[in-house]
Amino acid sequence: MKENINVDVLIKGGTILTVDQKHRVIHDGVLTITGDTISGIYSSDEIPQELEAGMLIQADGKVILPGLINAHSHLAMTLFRGFVEDLVLQEWLKRVWKYEFSILNKKAVRAGSKLALVEMIKNGITCAHDMYWHFEQTMEVAEEFGFRLLSGPPITGLGDQKFDEMFAQARKTLDWLDSLEFVYPIIQAHSTYTTTPKMMHTVKEFKEEYGITFTTHASENQTEVESVLERYQQTPIQLLASYDLLDESTLLAHCVVLENEEIELLAETKTHVVHCPESNLKLGSGIAPVASMLEKGINVCIGTDGAASNNDLDILGELKTAALLQKGSNHNPELLTTKQVLEMGTINGAKAYRLEKDLGSLEEGKKADVVIMNFDKPHLTPAHDPAANLIYSSGKSDVETVFINGKLQLENGQLILIDEEQVKAEVRLISDQFV
Amino acid sequence: MKENINVDVLIKGGTILTVDQKHRVIHDGVLTITGDTISGIYSSDEIPQELEAGMLIQADGKVILPGLINAHSHLAMTLFRGFVEDLVLQEWLKRVWKYEFSILNKKAVRAGSKLALVEMIKNGITCAHDMYWHFEQTMEVAEEFGFRLLSGPPITGLGDQKFDEMFAQARKTLDWLDSLEFVYPIIQAHSTYTTTPKMMHTVKEFKEEYGITFTTHASENQTEVESVLERYQQTPIQLLASYDLLDESTLLAHCVVLENEEIELLAETKTHVVHCPESNLKLGSGIAPVASMLEKGINVCIGTDGAASNNDLDILGELKTAALLQKGSNHNPELLTTKQVLEMGTINGAKAYRLEKDLGSLEEGKKADVVIMNFDKPHLTPAHDPAANLIYSSGKSDVETVFINGKLQLENGQLILIDEEQVKAEVRLISDQFV
Repeated sequence: MKENINVDVLIKGGTILTVDQKHRVIHDGVLTITGDTISGIYSSDEIPQELEAGMLIQADGKVILPGLINAHSHLAMTLFRGFVEDLVLQEWLKRVWKYEFSILNKKAVRAGSKLALVEMIKNGITCAHDMYWHFEQTMEVAEEFGFRLLSGPPITGLGDQKFDEMFAQARKTLDWLDSLEFVYPIIQAHSTYTTTPKMMHTVKEFKEEYGITFTTHASENQTEVESVLERYQQTPIQLLASYDLLDESTLLAHCVVLENEEIELLAETKTHVVHCPESNLKLGSGIAPVASMLEKGINVCIGTDGAASNNDLDILGELKTAALLQKGSNHNPELLTTKQVLEMGTINGAKAYRLEKDLGSLEEGKKADVVIMNFDKPHLTPAHDPAANLIYSSGKSDVETVFINGKLQLENGQLILIDEEQVKAEVRLISDQFV
Repeated sequence: MKENINVDVLIKGGTILTVDQKHRVIHDGVLTITGDTISGIYSSDEIPQELEAGMLIQADGKVILPGLINAHSHLAMTLFRGFVEDLVLQEWLKRVWKYEFSILNKKAVRAGSKLALVEMIKNGITCAHDMYWHFEQTMEVAEEFGFRLLSGPPITGLGDQKFDEMFAQARKTLDWLDSLEFVYPIIQAHSTYTTTPKMMHTVKEFKEEYGITFTTHASENQTEVESVLERYQQTPIQLLASYDLLDESTLLAHCVVLENEEIELLAETKTHVVHCPESNLKLGSGIAPVASMLEKGINVCIGTDGAASNNDLDILGELKTAALLQKGSNHNPELLTTKQVLEMGTINGAKAYRLEKDLGSLEEGKKADVVIMNFDKPHLTPAHDPAANLIYSSGKSDVETVFINGKLQLENGQLILIDEEQVKAEVRLISDQFV
């Protein structure tokens, strides 16, 4: 006689894309959630007979995948969505900065962050990075909503006048983060061109003292590389190496402009890279050598960057763009297979933040960040290859149900715990001040 | 006293993107449909007081735009969606051809075409090109559904053995098309490398005799250009020029591999180009020089190509990709403004098929092909710039209501005249035969 198992949630009948090491695709599979954890994954012929669930989700015609991870973003920039179009970076920054200085108070960041989390949950994203003004507001909102946030004090400044104050504040923030459940502390610097060597050395000390991941923008475009070369006679990557900041607990955002030796260096040091294809294209930065990086064994994950240069927080869209871009720009359709692309949006993000023990794939014992998408749609018919349909044909609106940490956040496309109308209204009140 | 005007449909309260020459953006606008025609477009302060409508659509928070035009596709290839992934073109073709020869009968093409039309209507596309096997089936389905189709006999063959038969059949098809309302007859050839000079000379004669548009694939990738150069000592573009086939009633698909002189030649001859960015990327063909073509005054429109190499029929997605790609690959964010991109998906497609008198923009007197999108969504908040939100942030699922020729086809995302479940079921019966 089989034993009687009680679970909180039982999802059955759908196609499970585990994104585990074997990349199992389980048709007519079963996934169970107990508390905050995935308690079981079965194929239809190995289901325990006596599975009793508090909540049953019949998932026929649906695809179940791990929560998507947005590994680089500036969340409250949702406030600037569509605000600055078709301008070169310098002009773009001037216009954004003007409003960041005048309008961007704590209340605005709070509203913009809420909008970002709402958008991301609806897009199947269960974990995201943030680097922005008034970052504590975003942390508080994430904690309140039960959304996984990768964030920490951002170090930036062209001189060391406020050095002591900044790092004292950073220490205070990191200590405070101990009390939050959903915010994973990291240390971050804006870039090598907006920090001083003294800051970067202290960042390195913080990284080691707290045992946390470090992230920064690096080699985003030609102008950045040239300005760093001029000031330091080293590229951003070389400069980071000289700070001893390239290692397996560092994640570099963008890495568009790289020499071959720099790719080698990133691979040797096991440094992670987060690719933001749409932002890189929209700002005219270029196309990152992602295929080469993957070939050298670099762990490349995916980020949306801020909504001001993108203009959305849509990891599924970024994955499609990433795959198409490498195939097309390298004239090689064999590059970036659907498996690789799916990893970039899930497990690779978890690895970049060293959270792969808990996040990034559907495996027994991992945290229950689970996304269910409805594939019973014309644009997802026929179903020759669920992973290909996911990457190339699905859209964010096919996301139907989302669990984060075992908690139901989205059901049939509707938010369960958050008042979407109020979140949109708060943002409109603020954006009306933009002229 | 204002006069009493009766209209069939009255859409009010939304933001109208006319895509007319002035690119008017009318907030709180009104659009009326009478019969198959747009009978009025007003801003809120010029609305006739006594407007009486059979159907009232309150469009607050919505955006109203012209029906999107898919200017190059192989519709029934929806059957192969996701069937061949991550392979070089030769291997890809081998696998597709195997099934095209064994399974692709009239019934299958009919089912695949229905699926394509269903998908396109839901994506806001009201007019599409087709070139495929058993093309009469697709024509019949379009006529039945009331969907605008740009199609005609495709000329192809490596020898002239079946020459007389093929053109006799072409003549029969063109004469038959006189009796259809929704199919706009064209003459098409597969390409310069799959036709003979004799065929192309006769295509030219047909084009003139019937006064119809000619379309063909040209310079899609390096391999094609090299093989044509080897056989004819001319590039595909030069060869088409030698056939006297470059003029304002010719539309070339792809044009990825072009020399500067060829761009000049296309501009001088007023030849139209249809850009298929996602297919070109996915098959590793490369990135078409769209920004250069636009700069030279070439009319560039947009196509999805077949769903087997894309993998969907989503013009909004193609527009975003097209814009991002030109900005990124040319390191210039000023290229392809939102206005230009919006034109590529609408009026430029109409111009390419010389239908701009009736289609491609929202103007009084034009055919009522009208799309209403719901912009009251987190990913479309705030609304600084409706056109930017449309191109960069919206998705196909934001399409809510579609009129074609004044007839309601989609309402609140639901098809009105077509049984979607039956269409999907028919396709699944066929795709189950693929192994």
